[in-house]
Amino acid sequence: MKQITDLGIAQLSDAYRAGRLDPLTVTHDHLERISSLDAAIRSYLMVAREPALAAAARSSERWRRGRPIGALDGIPVALKDNIDVAGLPCTAGVEAFRHRVPTLDAPAYRRLHDAGAVVLGKLNMHEAALGGTTDNRAYGRCINPLMPDHTPGGSSGGSGAAVAAGLCVAALGTDTMGSVRVPASYCGVYGYKPSHAAISTAGVVPLSFTLDTVGPLARSAADLEVLAATLLQAGDRLAMPPICAWRGLRIGRPRQLDSVDLQSAVAAAFENLLQRLAREGADIVNVDLPAWDPPRARRAGLLVTEAEGAAFWERQLGTGLGGLSGELAAMLRYPATAGLAKIIAAYELIEAVRVDCRRAFADVDLLALPTTPQTCFAHNSVPPVNQADCTALANFARAPALAFPLATGGLPASAQLLAAPEQDRRLLALAAAIDGLRD
Amino acid sequence: MKQITDLGIAQLSDAYRAGRLDPLTVTHDHLERISSLDAAIRSYLMVAREPALAAAARSSERWRRGRPIGALDGIPVALKDNIDVAGLPCTAGVEAFRHRVPTLDAPAYRRLHDAGAVVLGKLNMHEAALGGTTDNRAYGRCINPLMPDHTPGGSSGGSGAAVAAGLCVAALGTDTMGSVRVPASYCGVYGYKPSHAAISTAGVVPLSFTLDTVGPLARSAADLEVLAATLLQAGDRLAMPPICAWRGLRIGRPRQLDSVDLQSAVAAAFENLLQRLAREGADIVNVDLPAWDPPRARRAGLLVTEAEGAAFWERQLGTGLGGLSGELAAMLRYPATAGLAKIIAAYELIEAVRVDCRRAFADVDLLALPTTPQTCFAHNSVPPVNQADCTALANFARAPALAFPLATGGLPASAQLLAAPEQDRRLLALAAAIDGLRD
Repeated sequence: MKQITDLGIAQLSDAYRAGRLDPLTVTHDHLERISSLDAAIRSYLMVAREPALAAAARSSERWRRGRPIGALDGIPVALKDNIDVAGLPCTAGVEAFRHRVPTLDAPAYRRLHDAGAVVLGKLNMHEAALGGTTDNRAYGRCINPLMPDHTPGGSSGGSGAAVAAGLCVAALGTDTMGSVRVPASYCGVYGYKPSHAAISTAGVVPLSFTLDTVGPLARSAADLEVLAATLLQAGDRLAMPPICAWRGLRIGRPRQLDSVDLQSAVAAAFENLLQRLAREGADIVNVDLPAWDPPRARRAGLLVTEAEGAAFWERQLGTGLGGLSGELAAMLRYPATAGLAKIIAAYELIEAVRVDCRRAFADVDLLALPTTPQTCFAHNSVPPVNQADCTALANFARAPALAFPLATGGLPASAQLLAAPEQDRRLLALAAAIDGLRD
Repeated sequence: MKQITDLGIAQLSDAYRAGRLDPLTVTHDHLERISSLDAAIRSYLMVAREPALAAAARSSERWRRGRPIGALDGIPVALKDNIDVAGLPCTAGVEAFRHRVPTLDAPAYRRLHDAGAVVLGKLNMHEAALGGTTDNRAYGRCINPLMPDHTPGGSSGGSGAAVAAGLCVAALGTDTMGSVRVPASYCGVYGYKPSHAAISTAGVVPLSFTLDTVGPLARSAADLEVLAATLLQAGDRLAMPPICAWRGLRIGRPRQLDSVDLQSAVAAAFENLLQRLAREGADIVNVDLPAWDPPRARRAGLLVTEAEGAAFWERQLGTGLGGLSGELAAMLRYPATAGLAKIIAAYELIEAVRVDCRRAFADVDLLALPTTPQTCFAHNSVPPVNQADCTALANFARAPALAFPLATGGLPASAQLLAAPEQDRRLLALAAAIDGLRD
């Protein structure tokens, strides 16, 4: 029998509509589950128990009257702790922000709220969103619910872990070089990174204005589609007709993937996916992205992120960067010593990769890549340097990307599909087809 | 009676098809005109007389057989001297490049060539494309054919002057913050700046990889549409249905224009245009671009341009920058002394302006702005600092823009229409409606 925490947005809404369940019960159930499980997982930094119950009671009342206010009415969600909610602490995973309480809501949160979502609390993350393990020294190490002592990935590790463990139906994360999709991959859930600026990043503690995006994680592509419909800012005027089926789609596989050191289980699962898509009628073609040398591009992205992140954190904390870990402070100090020429060259490489992707999308509907080159790894091992090599491509291209799990014999792998910039709704219309791949 | 040099692309093609004219005669006529007029105008740095006559003879032969090879067969064009043609000198207006002869063609030139265009030569420009007067110390001062001793604008000043004086039918320029549209404005002709990367910038001496574009100038919007059809790289997959008439269009007027110091003749001509468009059935609405403080944004664009330009020129010439004018070398040295924080802040402002424009284009089909705040001015006067304030917006937004002349009592003013990024064909489909405004 399915537990409440196995249900998706449509199923919960149907149950609310039919009176089989109500938001207060479901919210209670999630809070109970957080109480019993999250001491070990450490996905929540703060549980907003009383506000959540009050919101759930109001939602229950609306459903009782048959007047839900939006597509997310009564759906329990949680937010990465770099997304401002007025009156709740928002730390960005940084010690210096331990007592920071914003007075304004982030528009992305506001959209969820206004669609009726019940916010359960704020989620653990890698310090300042710059890193891939969510082993947060100030606020605790987040654990992957699929495997003891393994990382959920990062930087939105709490978001991936909470969704995977059924501690919320969906979560918001942020994604600068892969920070939504890496945890989605390691935790076996679904993640969506929008086109640059397609979901508002206002009221979100920034890292890199060039690469930052806000995006949801959930337990199905269908749920991501519903969340995106709420979260996406205007853009319909720019969208092409949606694509709803694999048949006739041209899907590009970048040749440069051959130079990424993929774990054999990941490589096999990805090739299986491409064969499956071909059987479903898609046309799988090789595409060339000559400027995309994955490790070089990753280093360029990291340098730009560090330079832009340093500008923000130095404005906040002064050049001493007090209240950041030594490791983070050292990363943020690196660009000034690297020098202007290297930083300009990094921006140039990102631009060249973007132009390559633009050219590719004139020829194909979608690009397909593995999400991470590996499955999740133990917290006590050395993080692979290439974790974000495949995800950062979408940030460079300013393109939307949807990551979804691939079955393996063991821990889940993950693939992502990218569409041309601003074609978010077109990509998300494939949600049912993506969920259909589970069958 | 019309002179040959008054004819546009469609008229010339019709005359070639009907046998009333042939490309060799037309090319001869242009070369004669260059011989007699350009000593005073100084728009050409190099006239490729023999190759042009040979190409024209081949084109004439094709037309005689009724087999033109493309939409530009036998059309005399010229190229700004920062666009490579194998075997022809390409100086970028820089003394250090006086003897530079590239061995590869720029793809943008190649597309014109392959469509049958006859290249008459290479055109004067502001040194290194960084400046707005085309008073080139190394290669001579280019004059505006509309007014003795006045600047044609820059940096593609030779392109504007040659098109206005009938020394070519169309010309290619480059546009980083307005370098196609400023000369189009001052010289009373039409200029088109494409979406970022929509026309290849390969084989073009770079200035700013973030802002550079290549675009044509011509004597009608209809001619720009034909040129764009040849020059634009793949992108049809991304385009919305074209818009061909003013009726029902939503056209946004940025509120921030109120802070731009417009000459009264320019302001009046622009307001007349908006009234005319409203009479034609367009819906003129105010839009807000809060991050676009025009002078501040211009300074940010200039700093990014100088930083990216310095990276290129130091790779070419070493840190001594020998072979550049002292003025240009000083501009390129400025970013290193300004410091990293200011440069990152400049990138951030450009990004914020881009995001504002993205939001605006979710609400309107087009943005309308004056092209330059002023009409052309005397070479011996101090150039206004705000020349590129209105043009740089499209470079920041990565959006296509089409500039067209507006009649005044005296020297021509100019307006531009911007569309959302990648909607180039949609914008260009308005060409007939734009040309119709002359009536």
